[in-house]
Amino acid sequence: MRLSLNQWTTRSWTVAEAVDGCVRHGVEAIGLWRQDVAAYGLDKTIALIDESGLSVSSLCRGGFFTGPDWEADNRAAIDEAAALSADCLVLVVGGLPGVTPGGPLGGFSRDLADARRRGADALAVLAPYARDKGVRLALEPLHPMYCADRAVLSTLKQALDLAEPHDPAVVGVVVDTFHVWWDPEVLDQIARAGERIASYQVCDFLHPVPSDILLARGMMGDGVIDFAPLTEAVRAAGYRGDVEVEIFNADLWAAAPDSVMSLMVDRFAGLIAG
Amino acid sequence: MRLSLNQWTTRSWTVAEAVDGCVRHGVEAIGLWRQDVAAYGLDKTIALIDESGLSVSSLCRGGFFTGPDWEADNRAAIDEAAALSADCLVLVVGGLPGVTPGGPLGGFSRDLADARRRGADALAVLAPYARDKGVRLALEPLHPMYCADRAVLSTLKQALDLAEPHDPAVVGVVVDTFHVWWDPEVLDQIARAGERIASYQVCDFLHPVPSDILLARGMMGDGVIDFAPLTEAVRAAGYRGDVEVEIFNADLWAAAPDSVMSLMVDRFAGLIAG
Repeated sequence: MRLSLNQWTTRSWTVAEAVDGCVRHGVEAIGLWRQDVAAYGLDKTIALIDESGLSVSSLCRGGFFTGPDWEADNRAAIDEAAALSADCLVLVVGGLPGVTPGGPLGGFSRDLADARRRGADALAVLAPYARDKGVRLALEPLHPMYCADRAVLSTLKQALDLAEPHDPAVVGVVVDTFHVWWDPEVLDQIARAGERIASYQVCDFLHPVPSDILLARGMMGDGVIDFAPLTEAVRAAGYRGDVEVEIFNADLWAAAPDSVMSLMVDRFAGLIAG
Repeated sequence: MRLSLNQWTTRSWTVAEAVDGCVRHGVEAIGLWRQDVAAYGLDKTIALIDESGLSVSSLCRGGFFTGPDWEADNRAAIDEAAALSADCLVLVVGGLPGVTPGGPLGGFSRDLADARRRGADALAVLAPYARDKGVRLALEPLHPMYCADRAVLSTLKQALDLAEPHDPAVVGVVVDTFHVWWDPEVLDQIARAGERIASYQVCDFLHPVPSDILLARGMMGDGVIDFAPLTEAVRAAGYRGDVEVEIFNADLWAAAPDSVMSLMVDRFAGLIAG
């Protein structure tokens, strides 16, 4: 399995710095974030990626179907993923309508069932467009602690049910160890997923959970996850794509990115690829 | 449905103060905590409860099967629940062996499957003893964000699977809105639970999650949960027991307990019983 750097693991780096870092550390693939690509320039990013020889394992991210303007934004995201030849466009479906990630509660809806139905409706609109553009959509279930504000898609089973009506080449799922490690059904659902697995992302779940729950991700080996059974299940399901390391962590973001890269390469070799 | 005060909602109150508070506010049932009962004295608590006319809707708690000395401690908890004529003894099964709630990671096991098996083994030992004592055990699935340190039992489905080999009169489950609201299968699993439901606990899930995730519980109406479908499902499943309000919340613990009681009675009438 080949290591890919998700760009937000070294968040202080620009696109150019992250591409250069990958090349210097022998990492052959990268997962990009739309806002960083936009800041650097889409055309410049495409040229840089071409020149570097890197693969783009994913573009993060579309989704947030419970917010306003989701359709135009997701069509733009699909266009960008196509232009970058990304292996997939990661979709985070969004939380309860009106609940702002990290923000205080204002006017919002508590209708969870309705919020979940919107994901199915949005996919029906976006899947044909993604197919036309040759882009694979990747539904990412998020840990249930983000259900209210980031993703009402909370389990791999639920993601696979949502993907079911669509061609696996067009609508796949993301398996992210951080989000699914606790799930009593995760190994069975990974087996069920099979060719639906569009991305395998790895990072650890920290204990205790830090004060900002968004930053509860840690370097592999620093938390509580046993990676071997999850990785073996993903491999047994037939996944042969890149493995992205995606970590949101205050200490790692404050550290020198090159030291984070070295640690990531070591830990990946010992805990994921080994 | 009849309101019950879980004692930790007014945590600064002693057993005597909480019993008095229930009587003064017209609350006819109480959920007690073992350490508070021990501090006041078990015999004194029994006498006080008898005199007050309150029902004991639950005793919190046994479990922590992945820690040392679980068997002796749980037999003691069953004895106490019997002595108090509690409707059930709540069981929180514990996290990964060696992971301390709130504490730093030291030596511990990442073997989640093994930790989960220990729950089944412990129940096989404890259920016959509970039956002899006339105590109903109540398995409580906890929100997945507590999987590492408090409960590897993360969904109602998993709790029902664990309870399955045992008589429903001896091994039931707790449905706590805080822990299960996000679960895509919760309504189906509540229906499946039927007479297994030994306790229905209510409180809200706060957004944003506060810095100490243990204190993410809020008064009904202060968070993101839509209580009506959950309460209706519990009622439709046949549950006719008390409904405990159990809230761990720094602001409520700092407030005057009588004001918390008044607010609880109002919100319960509007959002749960109504």
